[in-house]
Amino acid sequence: MPATAIAAKPAAAAPKPLLDIATPTPPDIVIAQSIKPKHISQIAEAKLGLQPEEYEMHGPTKAKVRLSVLDRLKGTPSGKYVVVAGISPTPLGEGKSTTTVGLCQSLGAYLDRPVLTCIRQPSQGPTFGIKGGAAGGGYSQVIPMEEMNLHLTGDIHAITAANNLLAAAIDARMFHEAAQTDEALFRRLCPADKHGKRAFAPVMLRRLEKLGIAKTDPSELTPTEVSAFARLDLDPQSITWRRVMDVNDRFLRGITVGQGSEERGQERSTGFDIAVASEIMAVLALASDLSDMRERLGRMVVGNDKRGNPVTADDLGVGGALTVLMKDAIMPTLLQTLEGTPVLVHAGPFANIAHGNSSIVADQIGLKLVGKDGYVVTEAGFGSDIGMEKFMNIKCRASGLRPDAAVIVATVRALKMHGGGAPVVAGTPLPHEYLTEDVELVTKGCCNLARHVKNAVAYGVPVVVAINAFASDTEAELAAVKAAALEAGAFDAVVTRHHSLGGAGAVDLSRAVVAACERPSKFKFLYDLDLSIKEKIEAIARSYGAEGVSYSPEAEAQIAKYTRMGFDGLPICMAKTQYSFSHDAKLKGAPSGFVLPIRDVRASVGAGFIYPLVGSMMTMPGLPTRPGYYDIDIDPKSGRVMGLS
Amino acid sequence: MPATAIAAKPAAAAPKPLLDIATPTPPDIVIAQSIKPKHISQIAEAKLGLQPEEYEMHGPTKAKVRLSVLDRLKGTPSGKYVVVAGISPTPLGEGKSTTTVGLCQSLGAYLDRPVLTCIRQPSQGPTFGIKGGAAGGGYSQVIPMEEMNLHLTGDIHAITAANNLLAAAIDARMFHEAAQTDEALFRRLCPADKHGKRAFAPVMLRRLEKLGIAKTDPSELTPTEVSAFARLDLDPQSITWRRVMDVNDRFLRGITVGQGSEERGQERSTGFDIAVASEIMAVLALASDLSDMRERLGRMVVGNDKRGNPVTADDLGVGGALTVLMKDAIMPTLLQTLEGTPVLVHAGPFANIAHGNSSIVADQIGLKLVGKDGYVVTEAGFGSDIGMEKFMNIKCRASGLRPDAAVIVATVRALKMHGGGAPVVAGTPLPHEYLTEDVELVTKGCCNLARHVKNAVAYGVPVVVAINAFASDTEAELAAVKAAALEAGAFDAVVTRHHSLGGAGAVDLSRAVVAACERPSKFKFLYDLDLSIKEKIEAIARSYGAEGVSYSPEAEAQIAKYTRMGFDGLPICMAKTQYSFSHDAKLKGAPSGFVLPIRDVRASVGAGFIYPLVGSMMTMPGLPTRPGYYDIDIDPKSGRVMGLS
Repeated sequence: MPATAIAAKPAAAAPKPLLDIATPTPPDIVIAQSIKPKHISQIAEAKLGLQPEEYEMHGPTKAKVRLSVLDRLKGTPSGKYVVVAGISPTPLGEGKSTTTVGLCQSLGAYLDRPVLTCIRQPSQGPTFGIKGGAAGGGYSQVIPMEEMNLHLTGDIHAITAANNLLAAAIDARMFHEAAQTDEALFRRLCPADKHGKRAFAPVMLRRLEKLGIAKTDPSELTPTEVSAFARLDLDPQSITWRRVMDVNDRFLRGITVGQGSEERGQERSTGFDIAVASEIMAVLALASDLSDMRERLGRMVVGNDKRGNPVTADDLGVGGALTVLMKDAIMPTLLQTLEGTPVLVHAGPFANIAHGNSSIVADQIGLKLVGKDGYVVTEAGFGSDIGMEKFMNIKCRASGLRPDAAVIVATVRALKMHGGGAPVVAGTPLPHEYLTEDVELVTKGCCNLARHVKNAVAYGVPVVVAINAFASDTEAELAAVKAAALEAGAFDAVVTRHHSLGGAGAVDLSRAVVAACERPSKFKFLYDLDLSIKEKIEAIARSYGAEGVSYSPEAEAQIAKYTRMGFDGLPICMAKTQYSFSHDAKLKGAPSGFVLPIRDVRASVGAGFIYPLVGSMMTMPGLPTRPGYYDIDIDPKSGRVMGLS
Repeated sequence: MPATAIAAKPAAAAPKPLLDIATPTPPDIVIAQSIKPKHISQIAEAKLGLQPEEYEMHGPTKAKVRLSVLDRLKGTPSGKYVVVAGISPTPLGEGKSTTTVGLCQSLGAYLDRPVLTCIRQPSQGPTFGIKGGAAGGGYSQVIPMEEMNLHLTGDIHAITAANNLLAAAIDARMFHEAAQTDEALFRRLCPADKHGKRAFAPVMLRRLEKLGIAKTDPSELTPTEVSAFARLDLDPQSITWRRVMDVNDRFLRGITVGQGSEERGQERSTGFDIAVASEIMAVLALASDLSDMRERLGRMVVGNDKRGNPVTADDLGVGGALTVLMKDAIMPTLLQTLEGTPVLVHAGPFANIAHGNSSIVADQIGLKLVGKDGYVVTEAGFGSDIGMEKFMNIKCRASGLRPDAAVIVATVRALKMHGGGAPVVAGTPLPHEYLTEDVELVTKGCCNLARHVKNAVAYGVPVVVAINAFASDTEAELAAVKAAALEAGAFDAVVTRHHSLGGAGAVDLSRAVVAACERPSKFKFLYDLDLSIKEKIEAIARSYGAEGVSYSPEAEAQIAKYTRMGFDGLPICMAKTQYSFSHDAKLKGAPSGFVLPIRDVRASVGAGFIYPLVGSMMTMPGLPTRPGYYDIDIDPKSGRVMGLS
């Protein structure tokens, strides 16, 4: 989000802001805490028409929306579905979340359209680390920002608990299998009750079915069947399931577990990821209802047995328990913007090793709640090559929903960097070219925007470019961006000033979006699912501008393994840097002619995608020398949080 | 809780149960799910007189109570304060939580007294492991038991997040100190803003004050002061702060961290405890308000520097952030019993390495809400030697509150084991002596009860013994227990049948408690704070029946260190097995003449106690071959949780 934006003069047509606007724009937390949020029941009932039994209050400013609302609204026509993505991000920030929020404030508070913003829940780790919050910025924010950036309604904590229960189940099972015969394992797994009767737990019937054992009485299993059932025989080397924590803890990236006095001899190298990198987060985002989530959680693959067969959460008997831990997390959380428009915050999967989009259920609920005259604006992580590509090919494929328009957010500054502007270092003054007019530089950088626009247009969806204006931008620079966007095929390109003006500053943008949504769209996927894993990878690589794809021996082996296991029909989720269309973060602009190297290939079978690793992905951030937490404290009198940004 | 209790005939005087009682008593989850909880706002407003702005709904069955209620009720007289503990626990279960709940159901629903139950939040780990829930049992339960046993309102998740942020801060700080000069550290800790001005964050002023540096402008520090301020110089060997997780994960008991490619060379052995073992849980339980919690969190000691000075959370700059993470957790959670009486669930510190009692703020709020004619019944962990001793000497010392009566829960079965009954093995039939009359055996075992009674009486508080009846108990056995209790100095001893009858079965008990609370009490502590650490340890050891205390060299060194650091004025929290008055879990009954060995001594400076380790304490449970999670699932249609126990 723009850190130094200064209120620009609104365009002649811009309405008077409803918010009390200060200049220069105060810090985010000051603005956020200056507005008293409406009671969330008002947002739920007056703005969204929710019935009292369709949502649960979590304090006065948060509510969880029950999925039962979808049953009531089954026959209602859906609203328009708008996805927001960015250009390839730079350290300067493009203000994608801020634009998403500002667009909705404008649609709701100025154009009087029913509107709902769907955004991801941010990880709590970075809140205390190096990056600020994820609730937007300036006069386009989700409030209360403290709630948004901290525990919210506990969904990420539930994911942590579920992820780590599964991890504990894996190690405990290997521990017990190492110490017991097949018969002893079976006796303990199916113990006799006081009448001497033994029974399978329902979850065990899933494993029996997978093994092709059509028996329901434990006493009827043959010794071979007992072995097959009771011994999972996990290959420790094959285990891909890691533990997670919602804290930036770099010392957990690589660890050895099992060094307690009772576990010695079973040490194992593993590590922690940040909680939002858990496959369970991706499952939450892609599940269509409770039952679908139960099935996805149960079929998550944690590794394979020594003969190469995948071992799942349900093989470990824990799929039901994971679902119980996630039963409240499946309800999206309702918040509001500074201008009182409704926001559903739900799920926040990583945008590289996962698909980087908020949940399907939130979008589904939103589309029904806003109705045929309304708008759901949903944010995708990073650029069209990352979050939007996965939105189209993974999320929309899973949900059956189709976008009516796409918005791509760009800034003059970021495009200057794509055009060859100097690197930016935090804590040092911005290089000269970012603060003074340089039309040539910005025009050169528009190659990045143009490719994002073309990629988005290829899905058959009208594209609006939102040019998020900074005070230092000149009219000539803004005009250059607009021209480049239109030339690349955008339906429209609009300068927007929601950071300094709130929804009033985004009225031109929201009018353009409304117009785009009236256009007929002919949605098509980038690739068909029945292509081979490699063909799918190559289709995506071409959209990056790659000339070809290379595979490491590990990648080749994994592709062969997943194909053999029958997972080759899944869509592809590329784990690639967001900073470049290529695999090299330093290649700004619109690189082409490169060969995309696939280092390894993994699968999130429960979430439902294969993820090739293009280079190495950081899945656990660290803390800097002076983390953000130095500034964070509470005023014990008022309970007010200080120092969040 | 009694697993096989069968509804016994109520005593002649027992009222008709208000609940629809089935015989034999159905499983806990069946009973719990058969009662539709009242909307929690009804409990909050009609039962407790809370005003709408004094509580926050968390769904329809849970609410968090704001501490602001204490301001409103400052002048209101308090109710009676009753603490419940047990005899030395056995694998047979004594039903302490069940008795606490049953007593309150009786006081509220049958004696029409204003009543509030204060209990601990259970760890989620055991819910999926080997032990069932902690919401009581039979017809004396807290509902919804799924909420009670799962996330509740997220307090334990907040503790996990805060504990692990501090852990990450420790390792990250050592990592950055290893790579940077004092000047570079200082430059990063107090960076110049765009005008070239540098400033200390408010939390840094705390460290400066501790160092005796009376300056507020970073540019005025001398090089020596810069070093002292910027380099914490933590001794890695001295770090006692471990990470936590609310999962039974035995493979995390002993781990090596820092094996990622970027952290190599800074590997360190450490481990995880279960979340409720975090010092932050003990802080939550002992804090009197938000401001007190802030100070306690900031002064938690994580280790010492290489010169032997303690290093605190505030030295790391993270005390404020920890408080922000805990700002909602400080509000107790309101639930209800099966008979609609109010329950505050709040905090659940370990009863050995911590003090094993629910929170001070919940008790304080409760005493004001019930008013002078009402009763707050609060549960202490384990026996009089563990939870109740710490209730009296740690919790009451911190809160200033004094109990009006103490209840000690005993069962015939458990006393038989203390009398020498055979060991009990899960999954095998109960030995004969537990199922048939054996007055001699139970009388012999009453030595355990008698010592618990005498210890409790020593605090100057009237003691009521609750004899939690099982169907297999005979009148002669129950009479023997009653006689022993009265002989040991109990004010009364009463047979109670709340498991099979709900509050109706505990009316005799509640009448006895009401009568006990009318007695004048002359409260006194077991020891004075100004005694030395060893004198305090020895006073507690005498109450165990020990003849003397021995100290390992490590314990001697730690006592010397903490005395030197000025922590010797803190109360003592003995980390001892709960299964025996002695250090040897196998010594049932009332052992005496033993020498209590102190293996090591640790300090929870933020919580405010020294904890000597008597033997080794398990602080991270494991999962058995067939964990409870095999039975746990959700009905996707109704959303009903199945298989919790």
